[in-house]
Amino acid sequence: MSKLDFKILKQKWNARVWQITLNGITLTTPVFMPVWTKATIKWIVLDMLKDPTYIWDLPEIKLILANTFHLYLRPGDELIKEAWGLHTFENWDKLILTDSGGFQVFSLWLGKNVEWSIIQDGGGNHDVKMKLTEDGVTFRSPYDGSKHMFTPEWVVDIQCNLWSDIMMVLDVCSPSGADKKIIEKHMQMTHRRAKRAFDHLKPKYNDVRGVLFPIVQWWTYLDLRQESVDFLSNYARDGIAVGGVSVWESKELIREVVSYTASKLPTNVPRYLMGVWTPEDITHAIEEGFDMFDCVLPTRLGRHGQAFATGGNVKINNAKYTKDFTPLTNDCGCYTCKNFTKAYLHHLIKEKEMLWGILLSLHNIMYLHKIVEDWKTAMLK
Amino acid sequence: MSKLDFKILKQKWNARVWQITLNGITLTTPVFMPVWTKATIKWIVLDMLKDPTYIWDLPEIKLILANTFHLYLRPGDELIKEAWGLHTFENWDKLILTDSGGFQVFSLWLGKNVEWSIIQDGGGNHDVKMKLTEDGVTFRSPYDGSKHMFTPEWVVDIQCNLWSDIMMVLDVCSPSGADKKIIEKHMQMTHRRAKRAFDHLKPKYNDVRGVLFPIVQWWTYLDLRQESVDFLSNYARDGIAVGGVSVWESKELIREVVSYTASKLPTNVPRYLMGVWTPEDITHAIEEGFDMFDCVLPTRLGRHGQAFATGGNVKINNAKYTKDFTPLTNDCGCYTCKNFTKAYLHHLIKEKEMLWGILLSLHNIMYLHKIVEDWKTAMLK
Repeated sequence: MSKLDFKILKQKWNARVWQITLNGITLTTPVFMPVWTKATIKWIVLDMLKDPTYIWDLPEIKLILANTFHLYLRPGDELIKEAWGLHTFENWDKLILTDSGGFQVFSLWLGKNVEWSIIQDGGGNHDVKMKLTEDGVTFRSPYDGSKHMFTPEWVVDIQCNLWSDIMMVLDVCSPSGADKKIIEKHMQMTHRRAKRAFDHLKPKYNDVRGVLFPIVQWWTYLDLRQESVDFLSNYARDGIAVGGVSVWESKELIREVVSYTASKLPTNVPRYLMGVWTPEDITHAIEEGFDMFDCVLPTRLGRHGQAFATGGNVKINNAKYTKDFTPLTNDCGCYTCKNFTKAYLHHLIKEKEMLWGILLSLHNIMYLHKIVEDWKTAMLK
Repeated sequence: MSKLDFKILKQKWNARVWQITLNGITLTTPVFMPVWTKATIKWIVLDMLKDPTYIWDLPEIKLILANTFHLYLRPGDELIKEAWGLHTFENWDKLILTDSGGFQVFSLWLGKNVEWSIIQDGGGNHDVKMKLTEDGVTFRSPYDGSKHMFTPEWVVDIQCNLWSDIMMVLDVCSPSGADKKIIEKHMQMTHRRAKRAFDHLKPKYNDVRGVLFPIVQWWTYLDLRQESVDFLSNYARDGIAVGGVSVWESKELIREVVSYTASKLPTNVPRYLMGVWTPEDITHAIEEGFDMFDCVLPTRLGRHGQAFATGGNVKINNAKYTKDFTPLTNDCGCYTCKNFTKAYLHHLIKEKEMLWGILLSLHNIMYLHKIVEDWKTAMLK
């Protein structure tokens, strides 16, 4: 039996509102998860996300995402285990989803003069920073150059050490535009890894906190997506994730792939669409039946002075906001919009007073949170 | 009649607990004021200081300090006036004290190759960054080199534009170790400036929001302090400030000067001791009859990874805290100490995750706030 209980609150065409309970925490989906890469959401005190002052009349955020790759390297999953898990370490009493690190290992070295041929076959180059083998993936730490290996089993163990609530399998990512044969090889390897990860988890499934999701990728190759869904559905006991739809490709193509993949996914488990973040893309994906979303953009853009707004992001550094005594947006009502003007936020970024990043990050997180919550409210009416 | 109402709640030897009401806000003194230099307390969302989550069972903070010099230069007091004052601009519905800028003009250029003789007499040097005249002080903006002049009258007007609740007169600061004759000249000049500032405010006293405090300085020269108190007491209608006791001098000498000056001050108005911050110095000053304190150190030290603690500051960057799963201090109970371990804070600073500075700044502010509040509670028993 799944550790993840759910109740269908509403279904309309492909879209759905579920009530999910895991480890004693109940939330409704669809849900937007803020990203807590290194055991902290950048520039934000996490209690703010539980506090009516900052989230006004929206339901509190109950599910966040942390990063296995970074936490394994620093401060180390063993240290976090000693600290009684990530929840205790970072003071978060709700749910935590951890990614597998597969994407980080892949993306950290891509574009850093690591040749594509080395990534695809392991090559013989001694300078290799990332090497794929059947057993797993070897990589060098971007922090100190030390050598590490992730295997599917080991990545499950790391996530168990973190006391993750929702774990991801170690997948093999493929670069956009790669030869289809290579991508197919990566897919087959990912399938074998998924099997190993679930075989490893099976005997201790009831003793650990987390559930495990497989990941479907493979860019715009719909036949590969179909094949991967067919195979990985066998492991979608508690949920399934879909990746590879948010970078490099055109909006139209992404939508087509999202719709197609959604139509093939099992309907009886939560579906997590990785890294999709624009308000329109999230709304589209919700309508196609996706339930979970995450992205680092709200905080990253916030730190760089950009705020989400209908009709285009507000770049608060712009001189035209010097005497603009209106809020970032008129339709938001978040803590930042309710209490501060563009003129004040402009003053803060000009003076390099970090509060600008805190307030813009809060706005951006709440902007996406509100879109999802408003959609849910409308559905439940 | 003073705009500042007060009620004596307790008096014991020289120490006192007052209830003060100004502009509809009531607070009790002694009080520690966090510093909001440029319309933001560095790295902190100011609503945190009103929120039980962060201040636990202490009374909320109701009085903060902002910086006339910096706000005049950026974003400009005229802009803040247009924004309906500093309270509206920075979203603070309690009280704001503004310093006069006298100390900033003085300290920004001291030690920056400005010769002492130029500071004392204005000199003839064209490169002069700060020039004292009978009329006021001319200085160049540290931001863009533009030329500005502060007169006693103008500084009152700036503070009125900011909608300050408690304003300070433009004073002339003297460098430590300066010849007594020079210091005496500065004192006489400060007295004339105080008279001008109060003469300027008088006709509009009932139309503006703020009250105005004169400032007594003059280092360790007790006779000058006595003379200055005698003169400035004439203007201490709503309160009086004492400066020049927190930099450069020995602890013993500072205490002697604090005690002496306190014994000469009028007893029927609030007394503000500027820039004194160590827990011991604050406690000593409270016992000598001072009511108000401020310092930038809590947030500055916090950003640099130092946390106040009994028995010496905790330097959280130290490797010995890597696996220290205890709070910063055992006797504090603030939000940071209640929820996070040294190991977590150490991880944050190692990863340059700014939350370390937010949490340490909160701890340091609350640490001093608690010392003052605990003292008050004990007095009122």
